[in-house]
Amino acid sequence: MKRLIALCLVTLLPTPALAQTAGTSSVKQQIVPQVAKTGIMASAQSPDGRLRIEISTDNDGHMAYAVFRNGKPLIGTSRLGFNLTDGYALFRKMVFDGAETATANSRWEQPWGERRFVTDHHNELLVKFHQDEPTHRLLNVRFRLFDGGLGFRYEFPEQPNFKTVNIAEELTEFNVLPEGTAWWIPGGEWNRYEQIYQETPINAVSIAHTPITMRLKDGTHLSIHEAALVDYAAYWLKRQANGSFRTTLSPSSRGARVIRDTPFTTPWRTIRIADNAAGLVENDLELNLNEPNKLGDVSWIHPSKYIGIWWGMISGRWSWAEGPTHGATTARTKQYIDFAAKHGFRGVLVEGWNKGWNGDWFGHGDEFSFTEAVPDFDLPALSAYAKTKGVHLIGHHETGGNIANYEPQLEAAFAQNQRMGIEVTKTGYVADLGGIVAPGDKPGEVRMEYHDGQRQVQHLLKVVEVAAKYHNAIDTHEPVKDTGLRRTYPNWIDREGARGMEYNAWGPFANGPEHEPTLVYTRMLSGPMDFTPGILSLKGGNDVPLASTLAKQLGLYLAIYSPIQMAADLIENLEAHPRELDFISKVPADWSESHLIAGEVGDYAIFARKDRNSNNWYVGGVNDATPRTLDLSFDFLDPGKTYVATIYKDAPGETYLTDSRHQIAYDSKKVRRGDHYSLWLAPGGGAAMSLVPAR
Amino acid sequence: MKRLIALCLVTLLPTPALAQTAGTSSVKQQIVPQVAKTGIMASAQSPDGRLRIEISTDNDGHMAYAVFRNGKPLIGTSRLGFNLTDGYALFRKMVFDGAETATANSRWEQPWGERRFVTDHHNELLVKFHQDEPTHRLLNVRFRLFDGGLGFRYEFPEQPNFKTVNIAEELTEFNVLPEGTAWWIPGGEWNRYEQIYQETPINAVSIAHTPITMRLKDGTHLSIHEAALVDYAAYWLKRQANGSFRTTLSPSSRGARVIRDTPFTTPWRTIRIADNAAGLVENDLELNLNEPNKLGDVSWIHPSKYIGIWWGMISGRWSWAEGPTHGATTARTKQYIDFAAKHGFRGVLVEGWNKGWNGDWFGHGDEFSFTEAVPDFDLPALSAYAKTKGVHLIGHHETGGNIANYEPQLEAAFAQNQRMGIEVTKTGYVADLGGIVAPGDKPGEVRMEYHDGQRQVQHLLKVVEVAAKYHNAIDTHEPVKDTGLRRTYPNWIDREGARGMEYNAWGPFANGPEHEPTLVYTRMLSGPMDFTPGILSLKGGNDVPLASTLAKQLGLYLAIYSPIQMAADLIENLEAHPRELDFISKVPADWSESHLIAGEVGDYAIFARKDRNSNNWYVGGVNDATPRTLDLSFDFLDPGKTYVATIYKDAPGETYLTDSRHQIAYDSKKVRRGDHYSLWLAPGGGAAMSLVPAR
Repeated sequence: MKRLIALCLVTLLPTPALAQTAGTSSVKQQIVPQVAKTGIMASAQSPDGRLRIEISTDNDGHMAYAVFRNGKPLIGTSRLGFNLTDGYALFRKMVFDGAETATANSRWEQPWGERRFVTDHHNELLVKFHQDEPTHRLLNVRFRLFDGGLGFRYEFPEQPNFKTVNIAEELTEFNVLPEGTAWWIPGGEWNRYEQIYQETPINAVSIAHTPITMRLKDGTHLSIHEAALVDYAAYWLKRQANGSFRTTLSPSSRGARVIRDTPFTTPWRTIRIADNAAGLVENDLELNLNEPNKLGDVSWIHPSKYIGIWWGMISGRWSWAEGPTHGATTARTKQYIDFAAKHGFRGVLVEGWNKGWNGDWFGHGDEFSFTEAVPDFDLPALSAYAKTKGVHLIGHHETGGNIANYEPQLEAAFAQNQRMGIEVTKTGYVADLGGIVAPGDKPGEVRMEYHDGQRQVQHLLKVVEVAAKYHNAIDTHEPVKDTGLRRTYPNWIDREGARGMEYNAWGPFANGPEHEPTLVYTRMLSGPMDFTPGILSLKGGNDVPLASTLAKQLGLYLAIYSPIQMAADLIENLEAHPRELDFISKVPADWSESHLIAGEVGDYAIFARKDRNSNNWYVGGVNDATPRTLDLSFDFLDPGKTYVATIYKDAPGETYLTDSRHQIAYDSKKVRRGDHYSLWLAPGGGAAMSLVPAR
Repeated sequence: MKRLIALCLVTLLPTPALAQTAGTSSVKQQIVPQVAKTGIMASAQSPDGRLRIEISTDNDGHMAYAVFRNGKPLIGTSRLGFNLTDGYALFRKMVFDGAETATANSRWEQPWGERRFVTDHHNELLVKFHQDEPTHRLLNVRFRLFDGGLGFRYEFPEQPNFKTVNIAEELTEFNVLPEGTAWWIPGGEWNRYEQIYQETPINAVSIAHTPITMRLKDGTHLSIHEAALVDYAAYWLKRQANGSFRTTLSPSSRGARVIRDTPFTTPWRTIRIADNAAGLVENDLELNLNEPNKLGDVSWIHPSKYIGIWWGMISGRWSWAEGPTHGATTARTKQYIDFAAKHGFRGVLVEGWNKGWNGDWFGHGDEFSFTEAVPDFDLPALSAYAKTKGVHLIGHHETGGNIANYEPQLEAAFAQNQRMGIEVTKTGYVADLGGIVAPGDKPGEVRMEYHDGQRQVQHLLKVVEVAAKYHNAIDTHEPVKDTGLRRTYPNWIDREGARGMEYNAWGPFANGPEHEPTLVYTRMLSGPMDFTPGILSLKGGNDVPLASTLAKQLGLYLAIYSPIQMAADLIENLEAHPRELDFISKVPADWSESHLIAGEVGDYAIFARKDRNSNNWYVGGVNDATPRTLDLSFDFLDPGKTYVATIYKDAPGETYLTDSRHQIAYDSKKVRRGDHYSLWLAPGGGAAMSLVPAR
């Protein structure tokens, strides 16, 4: 009992007050190992004291953590550990060996992003365990508590008895106690992340990808995810028979889902925790848990906007393959370069420029070349032409999932891209079940892997590292989920990883009006998305209608963050909407601040963002199927300035369900900090505003 | 179109009428490959015409089947195929190569079982496919349709381009269309089958073990399972995002969940289909799909009853390990042998007889010896003593999941058993997550496997085969699910594979009153269960109450079939209930007929069974928490005989919830075929009757 009291005293000591300026300070304290084997071994709090964790062991030597918020249980006793393929599990008979605490408070700057400065203020608790099953093995767990949530990761220290760790399964539990609603997409399958989000009671979740977002009955918002996923399998969150959630790792052809040599650390398992939707969204938990920028000077990365020879193929007009309707021709690309130059778009994406599209590339891709263009696409000439116009081609590496074919071509492909003035490359891994074709151990052999297994996670980072050498930024489609690695590799600028605009080409109202208002609070918590907004025609293939009003297409530029934003429609359709095109060409893709000024999960989301490169503000967002009037408050504006607000919004009474979706209303007014604006949003509607300081 | 018509004509030809006597007849017909790539390639019907299947391919070369009942869709288009670890999936671009049909009608005899004779009347459809991805690979699927359901399996023919098949996942779908209720236990975890069954809407199933039982809105009963699981991983049934079910195989430390060389066949995937609960239960689908008896003369297998030194440890009075409360002592075993002899029990199970229990055996088991007894258990003396009494010790091989320790001892252990007059051996695999410790590829290495993965499936059959050499029958605890292999290996007499009586020792009403009325329609469809009934005290450890009346303990001998039935209580408790003990000592463990004469899934089940070795009938069963009065009809009795019915039933008004559970009522009457009997069942109640022809 005495030792327990001493422990509590140690953890109750207030952390020293720290300066708010940049810099890191830390205070470390040791906690001695307990003699008692069961009970609470260590605890820690967030800086504001509202979150508390307790680490415990039981009679059988299970390690567990629990989370309390405002003194009430939030995450109940949740076990930790691993199954191995070649030895007894790191699960029972774990012995607590002591703990250390630390505090840090710093501010760091992002080279691009939703905000310029990021505050990292956390308390840390490192707990140490060993097991003698049958030999002495060491395992640590490091927890970091922020006011906005917590993260923890396992650390396998250097140790003589445990050289290679063959993880069969990770057994991390999340015993979410309160009831509530969850927004999630099913995990556990081949088909990646391109699904409509489900909204169900938390206890109806079966197996989910992360981020998975929850809103508890008392209004607390949670999102469970991971940070710094490097050289490890992604995890899916699975509901166990006893009601708690547990990690399950993406499988591998090798049996062990993760193979690592000690010492190593796992990704961070993260839980964002907030009082409301804005607290959930304006939250840098995962970024703060990632390593700082490794690339040094990244001034060659340019947040910008682009158009592309893409929607034409998606909507069935053109082909990727060579032939009479080939999309990527020299003539058309010149036309798109001209349009980009005229309207201020820095990039032109061209898909179908290279050899390999004529065969059965879906899930095969063994014929793709990433250097050889097809005869009717003159890459050098177009590259030179673009240069004269201040425009850059955007590279495209569709692999069909065949990384055995792609990896040997990486160096040559990115070197060529650099020579061609290409600064951004979109990659793709379109494939079927278990569809990543990885090289086997012997020539001619292949290994079929998951899109989010360890091998593919290794591959995707390798692509980013090679690309960085050649000053290419990477936009990964059919990716692994984003876990904040853009902090460490700022050229990893974008991913797909959800159902994007393209689904709207393939069926009427295909994504539905709720999709983007849900993405904001789920997918978008993980990082930027190449959603490809800007289908101003509101029409897909065969003219199927989008579940969107015209104003919503503009609102997407505020709701769905990306450092590279596409204006995705055919250029003739963009041109047919000159005022909207003008907004798109001017809306920034890089911000110094971002705030969710109105919104609820799955319903609507209105952001206010400040341009990183001027004093302009932008406001806008998206709505679901329920019309609503919002009272927006401009209390984010800089004090003492008057702004001219140019407003694009839904016309009264319109709805995405009918042709009225093409209507839009314009407004203009002078506004100052503290002013209010009443905004009506149509079903499937949206809005966008630029607020420019008046002269 | 012409070919399609020709195809339809071919499949509509009535199968020739066949004699009802024993023997097999078959009619084969060829169906030529279709030129068309999409649409229905082949179809077949059950003998009574009520079930029909259609085999189809689509534009992308997916193989699929669909099932119709009474002309209405039952199982919608359901895909077939495999993911591989080392090559493109056998899933797309499959080409139909033709089909063959056949018919069979025979009757065969079981050496022991619920019924003596089994009718096998089915129509068969064999469909053939190939794929050129990248080399020519062949895959066949064989369907058998019975009046009581259907089964199908994949067959990988001999083929030069496909020597070893490394299956990452099996992609067999079951697109159950109608809505209804499902009874199931969660699969996908380490913890085997010992769970309370869930009753939910079909669309709330996440991932389930099989058998999984469903009752559709129109009253149709289904149960999905498999037959002849040999050298393959067991499957769990997983609900996909699109609502249909799909197989997912138990994982392996090797990556590939199944590794087989061609030619080979997979287990049969089975669907029992019936109009009502009795049709579901009185159904030999899986047995009929298993291979005939390989062991030849099995007269050394004796359906019988046993007692044991077991409940004493389960309820916490004695220990398995040596020490002051060791259960398995020479003196106690003698006492139990005497009791067995006095009351007509053939077997005495003794757990804790051998070396290895003193260490941390749970999930380890590396210290177990299966030949060396502990000092206070004189095996040879007890074996000899038992022989003088006409009693046989029952062997016990608890492995702690460590088959690396068990397999090398198999021959010596079973040889010793045979010398000791042991005819039945109970085996166990009590272990934690991923807990089967299998030998690795090199000395000193281990591989951690699932209880129902390919390696463990191989192990369990190996044990049965070795045991057969030494005339031992096997009762497997912590087993893989039963898939009917008792037909091929009649010494594989029993398994656990669900929550049995032991859970009632560990908490009040631990299994609940609904458990056995659900087992009848789920677990018991797969095969016999060593449930270990007969806790006549109705008390577990620390006297916790069972969710059972006294009569229900007798009813279990009719409801839960096993060729070896335990009277599980301490012998002093059995002795304290002489009338009930008398019933138990006389109730047979082998039957010539079995019928469910009253029952609904999850509610109650009353069986009528005829003793294989006399003209006696037995009636009885179990009830859930709802008291009910049943009007039983004795229309199964042999005509022209009068029977003396001795009836054990619940006393009016009693309930498992109170001490009234100890009450029982006795009745006796003369009955004839066609008579009725009104039986009141208590909450948690049951009944048992012997019906002996009057002299």
